[in-house]
Amino acid sequence: MASESKESPSNNPGLHASPDEATKGYFMQQTMFRIKDPKVSLDFYSRVLGMSLLKRLDFPEMKFSLYFMGYGNPEAPPTDPTERTVWTFGQKATIELTHNWGTESDPEFKGYHNGNSDPRGFGHIGITVDDTYKACERFESLGVEFVKKPDDGKMKGIAFIKDPDGYWIEIFDLKTIGHVTAVAA
Amino acid sequence: MASESKESPSNNPGLHASPDEATKGYFMQQTMFRIKDPKVSLDFYSRVLGMSLLKRLDFPEMKFSLYFMGYGNPEAPPTDPTERTVWTFGQKATIELTHNWGTESDPEFKGYHNGNSDPRGFGHIGITVDDTYKACERFESLGVEFVKKPDDGKMKGIAFIKDPDGYWIEIFDLKTIGHVTAVAA
Repeated sequence: MASESKESPSNNPGLHASPDEATKGYFMQQTMFRIKDPKVSLDFYSRVLGMSLLKRLDFPEMKFSLYFMGYGNPEAPPTDPTERTVWTFGQKATIELTHNWGTESDPEFKGYHNGNSDPRGFGHIGITVDDTYKACERFESLGVEFVKKPDDGKMKGIAFIKDPDGYWIEIFDLKTIGHVTAVAA
Repeated sequence: MASESKESPSNNPGLHASPDEATKGYFMQQTMFRIKDPKVSLDFYSRVLGMSLLKRLDFPEMKFSLYFMGYGNPEAPPTDPTERTVWTFGQKATIELTHNWGTESDPEFKGYHNGNSDPRGFGHIGITVDDTYKACERFESLGVEFVKKPDDGKMKGIAFIKDPDGYWIEIFDLKTIGHVTAVAA
């Protein structure tokens, strides 16, 4: 009978329990992936998923722009553009969409790789919603493409949708995630 | 003279300003990528980057485990394993490390793809630190591999390091991010 949790260092070789003082204040700010067409992706992440455009950065010399999208910015962003950058980088859990100019109209452009076929690596981002089934009904009505509908397969109540570039987005809620993964917990 | 910010919908085709009521309460919970060896990755994300193991889920039938890592969990996690899952999925900005069992000892395993060479897609995660230079001195002393040191190239004060699988992690702080990107703001 182990008195320690499965997540304790004694059960997880390599794990250090006490974060180094030097890392105090660190936070996970962004997840970056490349997109073909900002018009299409901005529509998807704002209209379908409800994110806001926190900040856009444009690099004309290198011909790319960055779109930082995120949830929950109750306070109005600063009006000064540079202050708005700092404000954005002070927010947790944003996504950074990189647009290399021209891909949206280039017939030779083959699209981006979502990491779930060879060569694999990155898998998905995941969004906690209030109700997976309700959210997925709305996604269906909006024509969103599904990798897995909530009732497909064994993991009932968990869904995967695709963004416009084919990246996977997991959809789950706190009402079902516990019992659907209970056997693995 | 535009009175609206660069981030306003009028300047960003596709962008919707008002999130649909249905998306209220959505938040960005996780970024998933695959890792070769949990022992090595747990060490890196906990000891070097200061994250905690929030939850581990094991799926013996499908031979994989998930390690949810994150910052800032001041309250003690629930002791009940299933409640701890729910608690974890209620936290923003975690990373989900997927370990397909056996890769750590498989001489045939070629490693994962970080998305920054063809075929490209995912780019990196990014961590806000208190001081990029100070953080990078510590990373150097710990033998962390760099893609870009803070003073390399034009973007002074921004660094990229590699995790044990070769995924890129951007390192920046709020003191320098504003002026180093001012021309793009």
